[in-house]
Amino acid sequence: MAVTGRRENFWRNTPLPPVVEIRNVSNFVGQEVLIQGWLYNLRESGKLLFPLIRDGSGIIQGVVAKGAVPPEVFARVRDLTQESSLRVTGKVRADQRAPGGFELEVSDVDVLQLIPPDHPYPITPKEHGIEFLMDHRHLWLRSSRQRAILGVRHEIIKACRDFFDDRGFILVDTPIFTPAACEGTTTLFEVDYFEDKAYLTQSGQLYNEATAAAVGKTYCFGPTFRAEKSKTRRHLTEFWMIEPEVAFAHLDDAMVLGEELVAFVVRRVLERRRGELQTLERKVAPLEKCTPPFPRLSYDDAVKMLQEKGSEIQWGGDFGGGDETMLSESFDKPVLVHRYPAQVKAFYMAPDPARSEVALCVDMLAPEGYGEIIGGGERLADFDLLLRRIEEAKLPRQAFEWYLDLRRYGTVPHAGFGMGIERVVAWICGLEHVRETIPFPRMLHRLTP
Amino acid sequence: MAVTGRRENFWRNTPLPPVVEIRNVSNFVGQEVLIQGWLYNLRESGKLLFPLIRDGSGIIQGVVAKGAVPPEVFARVRDLTQESSLRVTGKVRADQRAPGGFELEVSDVDVLQLIPPDHPYPITPKEHGIEFLMDHRHLWLRSSRQRAILGVRHEIIKACRDFFDDRGFILVDTPIFTPAACEGTTTLFEVDYFEDKAYLTQSGQLYNEATAAAVGKTYCFGPTFRAEKSKTRRHLTEFWMIEPEVAFAHLDDAMVLGEELVAFVVRRVLERRRGELQTLERKVAPLEKCTPPFPRLSYDDAVKMLQEKGSEIQWGGDFGGGDETMLSESFDKPVLVHRYPAQVKAFYMAPDPARSEVALCVDMLAPEGYGEIIGGGERLADFDLLLRRIEEAKLPRQAFEWYLDLRRYGTVPHAGFGMGIERVVAWICGLEHVRETIPFPRMLHRLTP
Repeated sequence: MAVTGRRENFWRNTPLPPVVEIRNVSNFVGQEVLIQGWLYNLRESGKLLFPLIRDGSGIIQGVVAKGAVPPEVFARVRDLTQESSLRVTGKVRADQRAPGGFELEVSDVDVLQLIPPDHPYPITPKEHGIEFLMDHRHLWLRSSRQRAILGVRHEIIKACRDFFDDRGFILVDTPIFTPAACEGTTTLFEVDYFEDKAYLTQSGQLYNEATAAAVGKTYCFGPTFRAEKSKTRRHLTEFWMIEPEVAFAHLDDAMVLGEELVAFVVRRVLERRRGELQTLERKVAPLEKCTPPFPRLSYDDAVKMLQEKGSEIQWGGDFGGGDETMLSESFDKPVLVHRYPAQVKAFYMAPDPARSEVALCVDMLAPEGYGEIIGGGERLADFDLLLRRIEEAKLPRQAFEWYLDLRRYGTVPHAGFGMGIERVVAWICGLEHVRETIPFPRMLHRLTP
Repeated sequence: MAVTGRRENFWRNTPLPPVVEIRNVSNFVGQEVLIQGWLYNLRESGKLLFPLIRDGSGIIQGVVAKGAVPPEVFARVRDLTQESSLRVTGKVRADQRAPGGFELEVSDVDVLQLIPPDHPYPITPKEHGIEFLMDHRHLWLRSSRQRAILGVRHEIIKACRDFFDDRGFILVDTPIFTPAACEGTTTLFEVDYFEDKAYLTQSGQLYNEATAAAVGKTYCFGPTFRAEKSKTRRHLTEFWMIEPEVAFAHLDDAMVLGEELVAFVVRRVLERRRGELQTLERKVAPLEKCTPPFPRLSYDDAVKMLQEKGSEIQWGGDFGGGDETMLSESFDKPVLVHRYPAQVKAFYMAPDPARSEVALCVDMLAPEGYGEIIGGGERLADFDLLLRRIEEAKLPRQAFEWYLDLRRYGTVPHAGFGMGIERVVAWICGLEHVRETIPFPRMLHRLTP
């Protein structure tokens, strides 16, 4: 299983010839190049071999004609097994019929590792059960479908960051280890922190409120944790969240910011990841409709709409997954549901000055039944009211003294939200289950590989 | 302590008049604008008041002349206390003498919250002890110095991501919850994971090796954790690390990639964050020298150099902090020290085929005594040798079966490294202690706020 070495500078945008990444072959039509990768598939047709080669940046079809190459090269290609590693030399040809539009007229193959046929690559084109695939996640990621999801996820994350960076937000990453619970400890992961206890963060929001007063417009973007025993297609124990927070912003501002962000992200994916969406067989028409403004719907009206559709929901209750699906199916864009009853929302939500029984909050529901992707709103800026809420919620005041300080020293109106990345990936890619939206999913019964 | 509300769209690059962010005032010279922020400082000089206003995006000096504004406005400004929140209306004037080059000729002030003089903002311009400041980290971040560090940190992180994204790397975030220890469990944080145990990640490298085979060139960028009882100026329990990994790359490629990354990051900060570096009184001359190529130094030569300088180091030993400082002081650029003895390095390092007692690894030491900022190299690609190393290190083979799979199925040479963000921030900002490099530092005796 020896590996031979060549020393090329492989990551430059313009690769030094002859090593070329498959994503760049269009710049090398008619030229001899060297592709480094793995055999994805092999088709034989008469005296022709069509090895499908992947290198992580793309897939290209090679063509090997018997007689056009030395017999040992032909034999070497014919005997290749799935996922064997290789270096292929050949000439790039534009060909409309080829997948991707280009072909490689193979002249030589250097096999780095031939996987023996009696101990083959475990994931074959046949159907595998989900537990088997999850156990082999470290290999499953090489499949076209998983590679496509990784590409879209990358683009979504980059788009989110670019969106905020281009608007003057400062990234201020909030801590993962937190001393106290934001909203109860039942869904918190506890860590032995030397002689103390720490909890893994569920949200950076409280810290964001401090940093928004330092930098004006901030966001954090990191992993968050929830020890939920739910085993649904929407739950992970470890997931990534981006959370902007803006000083001097109000609920309406948070809604506009949220809809501009989501529209920007969708547009970016449509512009740059069409190929991946095609691989995923994702219909793009519903995504193309996601242009601002998104519809706004008050909680009151949402309840009426749900009751008309047959839901048992009563004013005052929180929506279930079924209610969210029902609501989102009534719109062909994401919908902003605002002003929920204060009683179902967290203690730090600002009450509506016109109607204190509702909070100045908003949830954004993705279309096509993908559920909540954004939750946020305006925060309580008033010291006395916040203190009362902390006491009503029976939270330990001492742990929130620093948070109260933000209302003691130069309090201002401020608003923000959190957007769950995996939910957005699931929606944009059109995936049924969030377990495929993150490279190595962590769930109730899944901690490996 | 009521907060009044105005509803402006505050985060656009081109703010809707009249609300303007201080960073944008140069576009509004001669115009009336509204600035929303906090009082940073107040100076009185005869019949003139000079309130220094900060809004998180910048600081601007206001000028209030007695007689030029209604007496109640003058009195309102005169009575302002540090960090009181306000909205200030005034005309922007270019003035060479003013800090930042612009001034605000104040016509009106709307005080949102006046901090009472008998319960003032706790952090005053006088000196405070470090424990006091760390206890008030949520407020301390508002100071010019901390705000400058946050800005540089933001720029460093953005530059790292842009560097890899522009070169076709795919971000694949590796899990935080891991089932097994990479290199022993003594410095791992343990988490109760339902009925199981999980450990917080110390590095995404092993997973990166899987994803590099899926996407070719990958990086992960997230928090990592180390339960070290060290209480030094270089240690945090929670810190951020960026880790690229490249299929078909070798040690030399990793060295070039590292030096290009670091040079790119330094140049970006010099281009975009001069003001922040000035606030930090960071000399830029040493940073301007960080252009590729960086010097390469073999471990062998490094040992000789250290012995000549009086170090007790013997061939075979790892460098201490003092050794690293001594080495880095011999160069005016970061230095790449390569090929350490295999015995001091991790089991997954590839041996040098020409000399198996040394590993194909590299550490980059920052200049000016800032220590190691990059560690990495070429990974063992051979199945049999890797298995032997795992057994020699007495690691549980079962936990590494997925990692061995990467050598069973299409193994290729590959290399990568990890770069610790806080070390880079400390170096570029010229900070003595890493505790100021991260918004909310976590250390042996520090878990709050």
